Amino acid sequence: MTAQLSEDDLIARFFAPLAGPGGLGLTDDVALFQPPPGRELVLTTDALVGGVHFFADDPPDAVARKALRVNLSDLAAKGAEPIGFVLDLALPPDWTADWLEAFAGALGDDAAHYGCPLLGGDTVKTPGPLTLAITALGAVEPGRMPARSGVRPGDRLYVSGSIGDAALGLRLRLGQGPALDEASRRHLLDRYLLPQPRLALAPAMAHARGGMDVSDGFVGDLSKMLRASGVCARVDLARLPLSEAARTAIAADPALFEIAATGGDDYEVIAAVAPEQCAEFEAAAAAAGVAATLVGEAFAGDGPPRFIGRDGREASFRRGSFSHF
Amino acid sequence: MTAQLSEDDLIARFFAPLAGPGGLGLTDDVALFQPPPGRELVLTTDALVGGVHFFADDPPDAVARKALRVNLSDLAAKGAEPIGFVLDLALPPDWTADWLEAFAGALGDDAAHYGCPLLGGDTVKTPGPLTLAITALGAVEPGRMPARSGVRPGDRLYVSGSIGDAALGLRLRLGQGPALDEASRRHLLDRYLLPQPRLALAPAMAHARGGMDVSDGFVGDLSKMLRASGVCARVDLARLPLSEAARTAIAADPALFEIAATGGDDYEVIAAVAPEQCAEFEAAAAAAGVAATLVGEAFAGDGPPRFIGRDGREASFRRGSFSHF
Repeated sequence: MTAQLSEDDLIARFFAPLAGPGGLGLTDDVALFQPPPGRELVLTTDALVGGVHFFADDPPDAVARKALRVNLSDLAAKGAEPIGFVLDLALPPDWTADWLEAFAGALGDDAAHYGCPLLGGDTVKTPGPLTLAITALGAVEPGRMPARSGVRPGDRLYVSGSIGDAALGLRLRLGQGPALDEASRRHLLDRYLLPQPRLALAPAMAHARGGMDVSDGFVGDLSKMLRASGVCARVDLARLPLSEAARTAIAADPALFEIAATGGDDYEVIAAVAPEQCAEFEAAAAAAGVAATLVGEAFAGDGPPRFIGRDGREASFRRGSFSHF
Repeated sequence: MTAQLSEDDLIARFFAPLAGPGGLGLTDDVALFQPPPGRELVLTTDALVGGVHFFADDPPDAVARKALRVNLSDLAAKGAEPIGFVLDLALPPDWTADWLEAFAGALGDDAAHYGCPLLGGDTVKTPGPLTLAITALGAVEPGRMPARSGVRPGDRLYVSGSIGDAALGLRLRLGQGPALDEASRRHLLDRYLLPQPRLALAPAMAHARGGMDVSDGFVGDLSKMLRASGVCARVDLARLPLSEAARTAIAADPALFEIAATGGDDYEVIAAVAPEQCAEFEAAAAAAGVAATLVGEAFAGDGPPRFIGRDGREASFRRGSFSHF
C-alpha cells in the first residue's frame, strides 16, 4: 500500500515512463503534438467501470489492455492509424502500488505494441469502483473514413475474425457455459478478457465504404449500422465466422448460437464494401493476416436486416444486442 | 425517472443536439475533424468525481460547466484556441431525465459560449458516484506554446484575475468561513462553483514563455512550474491580486490569506513573460479585458520560490498546495 503517494509522485513513478514525445514527460498540464499533415483526425473515447465493464477481480494487466484496446477497436473500424491516447483513472481507496505497477506496465506494453503512445491523463480518487476513461486519437486519409452511415445498396458486408467468442467466454466466466475441453474454454475466456483490435485491417478498410466495430453484439451493431445508413441487408447466419471453440460450445448447446450472434465484446469489425472494391478489400485483409468473411449484402430499404438462419429460414432474435449501459 | 432509456436514446435526446460538425451527430463510433492547417494540437483531460471534486448536491448545470471549464482553463494557460471536446459520463443508479436535461443544456450553452463543440463521448452506468471525464483539444501556433517548463531567469511572473476566491468560497460552502456581507459571500461561492477559464488571454499568452493554470493553489502550482523550469523566483505576496470579497474575508480573519494563496480551484493563469515582451503581453491582456498582475520575477537557481510576505519578510507556507487527488 502506497496510498500516501501524491498524484505527482504516482504519475512520475507509474505513467511518465509510458509517455510518448507529445506527452511532455507528463509534467505539463497538456500534451502537444503535430497532427500528421494532410490527414483527418479521428477521436474516440470509452469509459469502463469496475464491476460493470470488467470484473472487480480481473488482473490489472487485463483491465489496462481492455481499456486501451476497446478504443483501438474503434480506430480499427475506421481504418485509422493510432496517434496516441489520454487516460483518466479514478482509483478506489484500496488501490496498491503493485496493482498500479502491473496496470501501467501492461498499458505501456500495449501502447508500444499498437504504436499508440500515452499523451496525458488525470488520476483522481473515487469512493466508488475503479473507473477508467481512455480517449484515443488516430489519423485517416481525408474523405476516406468508412462511416457507420456509409453503407450503400449493393455493398457486401464482411466481418473480421470470429463472432461470439467473448459472449460465450463471459458465460463461462459466470459459470453458465457448457462443459468444454480446456483449450476451448481457455480460448473463449481469453477472448472475453482481451479484445484483439483489428488495426492491421487499416489497408483493407481503405477499400470499405462503411465501418463499425462490433462491441455490443453482431446482430444489434449491424442493425444499428444499417439504420444509420438508411439501408436494409440480407445476412446469411450460416456464414457467420465462428471459432473452433465457439463451434464446440454451440454443438454442445445449440441455444448458444443466439448468444454468440447477439452477445457483446467481440471487438471485431464490420466492413461494407462496394462490389468493385471487394477483390482489393479481400486481398488487403489476407495480406494483413486477418480473416474477413463475407456474411451478407445490403439492399435499398429501411426495415431491419433480414437474417437467414442456418436452416435457410428467416431468423429473429429475442434480444437484438447486449447493452453495456 | 427515465432510467429505462437506452444509451442510444439518451445520447440522441440529450447530447446529439450539442454535437459540432465533427461529432457526426454522435451516431458514429468516432468523431472526425480536420485539424487547423499549420497548427500544433494541445490535448488535455480532467476527471471529476461526485463528492470529491464537486458536491453531490451541486446543481447539474454547475457540474457540467465546471467539468468543461477546468479543461478550458488548461487550454487557456497554453494560449490555445478550443477545437472541441469529448465527454465520458458515468451515471449513478438514481439519475433522472431532469438532471441530465439540465446538465446537457448547460454543457451546450458553455460549449457554444467558448466555441468548443461536443465531438463525442461515452455514457455508462456506475454503482458509484457520478463521475465525468472531459478531454479537450485546442490549437496553437507551432513552437509557441508556453510550457510549464518554459520559465527562464529574468522572466516576469503574472497572474490573471484574482487568487483565492474559490478556496474561500469552499470554506464558506463548508460553513467554515467568516461572517460576510451577502454580496461578498455570493461572489466567493460563485467563484468556487463556476471556474472562469481565461481563454480570452490567448493573444496575450502568445507573448508568454511559460504558462500554467492555477488549479491546486497559487503557491503550490507556481512552485511546480518553477521546478519544471529549473529556475527560482521571488514573489511579492502584497501584489497577489485579491478580489474585494477576498479582501473583506481576509480583513475579518487574516489567517485566511494563507488559504487564499494555497487553496485550489482558482482556474487563473500564471504567465512567465520575458522582459522585452511585457509591454505587449500587458497590452494584449488589457485589450482582452482580463486583469494580469505582475507578482514576481524568476531568477537562476533551483530552490523553492521565495515568497515575500505583506510585512516585507520572507513567508513560508505550512502547506504548499491543495491536492485533489
